[in-house]
Amino acid sequence: MANQWVYLFGEHEFDKELLGGKGANLGEMTRVGFPVPEGFTITTEACRYYINEGSEPGDLDAQVKEKLVEVERKTGKKFGDSANPLLLSVRSGAKISMPGMMDTVLNLGLNDETIRGLIKKSGNERFAFDSYRRLIQMFGDVVLGVEHAKFEEILESHKDGRKDTELSVEELKQIVKDYKELVEEETGKPFPNSPMEQLSLAVRAVFNSWDTERAKVYRKLHGIPDDLGTAVNVQAMVFGNMGEKSGTGVAFTRNPATGAKEHYGEYLLNAQGEDVVAGIRTPHPVDDLKKDLPGPYAELIKVYDALEKHYKDVQDFEFTIEEGKFYLLQTRTGKRTAQAAVKIAVDMADEGLIDKETAVMRVDPNSINQLLHEQLDPSAELNVIAQGLAASPGAAVGKIAFTAEDAQAMAEKGEPVVLVRNETSPEDISGMAVAKGILTARGGMTSHAAVVARGMGKCCISGCSDIKVNEKARKMTVGDEEFGAESWISLDGGTGRVIKGQVKTVPPSFSSDFVKLMKWADSFRKMGVRTNADTPKDAKRARDFGAEGIGLTRTEHMFFGEDRLPWMQKMILAKNAEGRKEALSHLLEMQREDFKGIFKAMDGLPVTIRLLDPPLHEFLPNHEELLVEITALKIKGDNSALLKEKEGLMKRVAELKESNPMLGHRGCRLSITMPDVARMQVRAILEAAIECAAKGIDVKPEIEVPLVGHANELKLVKGFIDETAKKVFAEKGETISYKVGTMIELPRACLTANEIAEYAEFMSFGTNDLTQTTFGFSRDDAGKFITEYRDKKILDGDPFAVIDRNGVGQLMELTVKRGRATKPGLEVGICGEQGGEPDSVEFCYLIGLSYVSCSPFRVPIARLAAAQSSIKHKGLRK
Amino acid sequence: MANQWVYLFGEHEFDKELLGGKGANLGEMTRVGFPVPEGFTITTEACRYYINEGSEPGDLDAQVKEKLVEVERKTGKKFGDSANPLLLSVRSGAKISMPGMMDTVLNLGLNDETIRGLIKKSGNERFAFDSYRRLIQMFGDVVLGVEHAKFEEILESHKDGRKDTELSVEELKQIVKDYKELVEEETGKPFPNSPMEQLSLAVRAVFNSWDTERAKVYRKLHGIPDDLGTAVNVQAMVFGNMGEKSGTGVAFTRNPATGAKEHYGEYLLNAQGEDVVAGIRTPHPVDDLKKDLPGPYAELIKVYDALEKHYKDVQDFEFTIEEGKFYLLQTRTGKRTAQAAVKIAVDMADEGLIDKETAVMRVDPNSINQLLHEQLDPSAELNVIAQGLAASPGAAVGKIAFTAEDAQAMAEKGEPVVLVRNETSPEDISGMAVAKGILTARGGMTSHAAVVARGMGKCCISGCSDIKVNEKARKMTVGDEEFGAESWISLDGGTGRVIKGQVKTVPPSFSSDFVKLMKWADSFRKMGVRTNADTPKDAKRARDFGAEGIGLTRTEHMFFGEDRLPWMQKMILAKNAEGRKEALSHLLEMQREDFKGIFKAMDGLPVTIRLLDPPLHEFLPNHEELLVEITALKIKGDNSALLKEKEGLMKRVAELKESNPMLGHRGCRLSITMPDVARMQVRAILEAAIECAAKGIDVKPEIEVPLVGHANELKLVKGFIDETAKKVFAEKGETISYKVGTMIELPRACLTANEIAEYAEFMSFGTNDLTQTTFGFSRDDAGKFITEYRDKKILDGDPFAVIDRNGVGQLMELTVKRGRATKPGLEVGICGEQGGEPDSVEFCYLIGLSYVSCSPFRVPIARLAAAQSSIKHKGLRK
Repeated sequence: MANQWVYLFGEHEFDKELLGGKGANLGEMTRVGFPVPEGFTITTEACRYYINEGSEPGDLDAQVKEKLVEVERKTGKKFGDSANPLLLSVRSGAKISMPGMMDTVLNLGLNDETIRGLIKKSGNERFAFDSYRRLIQMFGDVVLGVEHAKFEEILESHKDGRKDTELSVEELKQIVKDYKELVEEETGKPFPNSPMEQLSLAVRAVFNSWDTERAKVYRKLHGIPDDLGTAVNVQAMVFGNMGEKSGTGVAFTRNPATGAKEHYGEYLLNAQGEDVVAGIRTPHPVDDLKKDLPGPYAELIKVYDALEKHYKDVQDFEFTIEEGKFYLLQTRTGKRTAQAAVKIAVDMADEGLIDKETAVMRVDPNSINQLLHEQLDPSAELNVIAQGLAASPGAAVGKIAFTAEDAQAMAEKGEPVVLVRNETSPEDISGMAVAKGILTARGGMTSHAAVVARGMGKCCISGCSDIKVNEKARKMTVGDEEFGAESWISLDGGTGRVIKGQVKTVPPSFSSDFVKLMKWADSFRKMGVRTNADTPKDAKRARDFGAEGIGLTRTEHMFFGEDRLPWMQKMILAKNAEGRKEALSHLLEMQREDFKGIFKAMDGLPVTIRLLDPPLHEFLPNHEELLVEITALKIKGDNSALLKEKEGLMKRVAELKESNPMLGHRGCRLSITMPDVARMQVRAILEAAIECAAKGIDVKPEIEVPLVGHANELKLVKGFIDETAKKVFAEKGETISYKVGTMIELPRACLTANEIAEYAEFMSFGTNDLTQTTFGFSRDDAGKFITEYRDKKILDGDPFAVIDRNGVGQLMELTVKRGRATKPGLEVGICGEQGGEPDSVEFCYLIGLSYVSCSPFRVPIARLAAAQSSIKHKGLRK
Repeated sequence: MANQWVYLFGEHEFDKELLGGKGANLGEMTRVGFPVPEGFTITTEACRYYINEGSEPGDLDAQVKEKLVEVERKTGKKFGDSANPLLLSVRSGAKISMPGMMDTVLNLGLNDETIRGLIKKSGNERFAFDSYRRLIQMFGDVVLGVEHAKFEEILESHKDGRKDTELSVEELKQIVKDYKELVEEETGKPFPNSPMEQLSLAVRAVFNSWDTERAKVYRKLHGIPDDLGTAVNVQAMVFGNMGEKSGTGVAFTRNPATGAKEHYGEYLLNAQGEDVVAGIRTPHPVDDLKKDLPGPYAELIKVYDALEKHYKDVQDFEFTIEEGKFYLLQTRTGKRTAQAAVKIAVDMADEGLIDKETAVMRVDPNSINQLLHEQLDPSAELNVIAQGLAASPGAAVGKIAFTAEDAQAMAEKGEPVVLVRNETSPEDISGMAVAKGILTARGGMTSHAAVVARGMGKCCISGCSDIKVNEKARKMTVGDEEFGAESWISLDGGTGRVIKGQVKTVPPSFSSDFVKLMKWADSFRKMGVRTNADTPKDAKRARDFGAEGIGLTRTEHMFFGEDRLPWMQKMILAKNAEGRKEALSHLLEMQREDFKGIFKAMDGLPVTIRLLDPPLHEFLPNHEELLVEITALKIKGDNSALLKEKEGLMKRVAELKESNPMLGHRGCRLSITMPDVARMQVRAILEAAIECAAKGIDVKPEIEVPLVGHANELKLVKGFIDETAKKVFAEKGETISYKVGTMIELPRACLTANEIAEYAEFMSFGTNDLTQTTFGFSRDDAGKFITEYRDKKILDGDPFAVIDRNGVGQLMELTVKRGRATKPGLEVGICGEQGGEPDSVEFCYLIGLSYVSCSPFRVPIARLAAAQSSIKHKGLRK
């Protein structure tokens, strides 16, 4: 059976996979009865066919022509007709929106013949020639690959400083002529006159645009699969550029930056759609339309409500007014900042538009990061030099870069960057990605800069006409003041204020909406969320963020402190048991204080403390540095005590040196061969616990043995932990209940979890190490090839960031099953870095983990992700 | 129900676990009707009870007394009776024989009272007092812990140069007195007079002997579990020391050194058993007994046949002749050299005593190593200086050590050692373990030295009366010539010749018996055996040893050759594609030659060639050495081109340096990021194959991609292998069939074997790496703690030597299952070092591997182990 490649708007049911987001929505709106210009959609299937086969399906042309006849019938116009010509737009529309990334061509169907019909029907020769020159310019650029700047050059030479609306008919005619010559010069062929040829070439250009470099970069940045393909929407033109009763605009049903329910949007009179988005003229806020065109304004206001009622979510839509008649050109789910997402979700639930579960599902856990960004210190004195549009909230403090390349170079040196441009274009994406914030002189709230910045969760101020930017000279002028590259500047995205210099920032505070949403989330959540924290300060912060305990305290971090490291070194270098004992007694005191602070901060909640993990050489001077020092001393003929001392030290450092420290003498292997350190730590934990308990603090210590690969290791270490506990309890005359458990970070531990569970009261996945050993990737070294692996599609993602479900995940699932076979209900958590990453949290939920543990700032993300998992996978948890 | 701790000989059925080897055999012989003195066995259960609880079972004493009454009834004598006293021996006997390791006490029951009865019944006062002094000496040493040497000192002072048989009754009485004084002096208590007390203490001493240091060392060396415990055999004494019509001897039913069917054994007249084994007097060969005591000799000869007929294996037995009456004191399966094991197995099968399967099972695959030992060059001129007993075959060439300590010290320095002693004792075990061979001046074919050396598969010459050894002075004298410590000496264990100096050695040749046995083995074997070989020479040798193909050729070894390394370095350091290309073209030519040689050696058999595996920095100078050089040059103010060059080199070395190279940029990761090298290798393999095929050689190349962890890696690499092959075939106008497969050496590869199998035509386990990642043990570093792990019983064995069935093994089993689920019948082998280790071979057989591959010298071991697995596990293979 032949494939159907083309559907009239509304002919097929809503199906983003097939029709793309834009096509599906145009169809949906057509069926519901919104005033949408007639048209049809060429499916993503056709695009995929084109990409895989290198040419369009053989029957595509015929199907297009068939649907075109339908459109002609409905509009009463004819494509290529010199009396009453139908003009068409061609727009891309993938399943997932990629704003500004893909290509559009307007006014297709114009040539020296049909323009006569357009003039006659519109009675507006100027408009007709303006449309014609726009066709040649866009088609020339997008379809024929003639440099955009060359058209602009011609245009500018004619404008000679005037606005484009001030060009005369004669001037426009000349521009059309010049444009045609330019095209012929550049491509070696005349501009295609045949409307059908124009259409075919434009469709193919959209197909091709799927694989441009910038589209690939965008998809990589947003994790969009490369094999979706795009649909193509062919639609009857309506004209916002027919004069002062015409116009075009872009609007959101709510404010996408703040979430406020207000008439958000912008329009330009006598303009076509791309003028608003491209940010060439700064448009007017929609409410001004009431005065300019009250009839269409009333229709617009009705559309706001109608769209939300139908779609139950914020819509981002485009409209055109042709000679007073209102058209809806497209709608899609509105991208929003995290702050807006939270407010909109909560408001809509409160309004009864959606239920609470839906509200919780509406916020992307990854975006919560944005709410945790630093903000400008409210108590700082601000030298505000300019005011722009508050296009994307947050704060940015950095040095100015005027080009994407400069921004990247500076970022590579580790400098904070604010990208300052007249306007941004898709070519700037990589510069925007590395910048802390973006400031543009032109463009509105829906300009490229604003939309992309919001997508990235970055602070952005757009349309800041107070500043003049000279990108070539790398200069920004505000009044009399000049700012060069690398001058410090600060942005307040929440208010649109541009501030001179480097303003201090402070941690964020949560909105009441956020608190409400998280409360709802917690009510659905079924998996615990803990934090990884090594200090009372981190522990407290995490608890404020909702952590329900500590899943990992890394005690070794405590040994690197200036007051501790010397004792640690003495312990390692001790020549006899006495020397070691003395050093350990000092460390004991300090560790006891560490643990007291943490127990206090976590009063009533469990605290998992891991025994010493890294190999001992990490605490001693670097082998190579020492080697250089000794070599130097020797060559200088230095025979001093210093050389002797260094050589003595070197002996021990060399002894402890390892070829593969990651797989070396560390973790419980240390506790087994050098039990004194672990005994000291256990003593410090339990003495601290007893002291805290005496002060009325509810302590719940969980002592964790790292890097266990064989049940016998845990059996032995648990043996002397319990022995030490007995001693401490006897000495103090107090008993504290505590648990002994293990980290699961080696494949062998997973495979023998049933045996290990005999001795473990809890288990916690160390997925960093487990990923290293399962893949055989050293984290420190794999960077060199992992990027290439991702480019070559060997790996979908970085397994150190997102749990590799197919490999590491299998081992995790096995562990849970086997561990609980031995001990039903065994507490199993995760404390690797993936514990705060939403996709990994979902996986942990599915395999039945008791909790995830992550860094303090990721705790709210994990809470939300865990709640969403409960909602999404009702009854599926193991 | 009360436990039965004591059984009369023959009361319980044959059960080594319960009764120990000696007890079970004494019982068996009693039941069959061999002339065994009456007695009973205290079970190993009683010993384990004693070890675990720290005291004997409460009812043990009563049970012993009960059985003692039975023995008294049968012998007509009474224990502790002054008229007709029963004397007893107490001997240990564990499930697995530990010759010389455990304790024995004879003549229990003698005291100042009972000796009168002994004198009266025997009519031999001298014998009675000789027995008495022996009791005190042995009991004093073994039970009371009085130093053996102190007794010897007293004895020597009385002997004054005479033989012990020349001592008079009065002298013996004085010795008894002196001994008693010595005991009281040393222990603070008089020698225990009560026979029952003597018995209890002796039994406890045997229990205690299980946990002596030397017993532990022996068990560790022989892989005997520590928790078996020993049984205790209490037996009525019969006396070989009653005069010239009495005697004692030790015999084997066949020659345990060569396997020859001959009257093998030794005896001493007028002696007790320990005199023969301890090697104090050099005994006579058994056939001399025909002349000395023809009656008992006839019985002995009957026993040779009767024992083999009953036990169907070589027996090692002890006999005693008391006043012309022949007694069998014990029998056990005879330990034998590998050479003897092979001959005996083949002979017995040929004689119809056992079937061929049993014959194949009779040879320990690990012992085959001995047959592969070097032998003295038959064409060398030998300066034979002495002739001893050919106690254990093989050749040893080394420097003389006179004590076990010296031997260990020399061995640690890597020197080959020959241990030279008057006689060896259990204290010398560790010195014997490190020696290449053992030479003793005293002792027979069944002396301690001979037995232990055969057990260890080491060359030994015993009873070499031509040499005089002064251990204290560290001197050996042969005629007029003196040899000091560290003089070179050579031993020919097959003939007993001692040769001066360092004789050249040559590879072994196999006996026709061995060839026959291996033929039988191959007829039972169901799993293939290949070899790991990197050179034509190794390949050929392995083929001679029976290898059925190459399971692993490591191409990187080829790059380290003097003529290759510079080109490899040029390739790595090349600044551009051209430089790299030139270096690669040189390497291509050399690799092609390598492969041609290997294909030729393996004509008709598969050859698996692994693509480059190690990280590139292994081919460049060492980072630290370079650092020292540069530091030195800088300090010297050297600004020469040399410094520049070194710094340039350092830049690349530093770039390639890795924190954990084992988990770094190696294996297929190299082929993916730097495909040129792999392409060159594939080209070299296929061009070589085509050239060989043109010469009529049957080539079967299997190209192996190392370190795959994700199916996509193999997909990509296989892609360009096939592409390269197409090109080569097109260029040459010839096509060769080849396979592409992968090593399985990462846990993730095992877990996703079903996916990887889509692109793999074969798989081969790299269990070295797989063990490293599964355990998280770096082989280079784990030595530091693995020994401690084994001492602390965390690990049973070294997982790098024997496959860890419970961890690594699970992954292997999973791999086979999943790989074959995708591709039924998929060829899966192993090429890790465990592939030639019998226990691992058995595991590989059980999980259904297609073949094992090991180093050339291990090929026969693997063949035999694989055959034994087939016999042992009929129908159990997956």
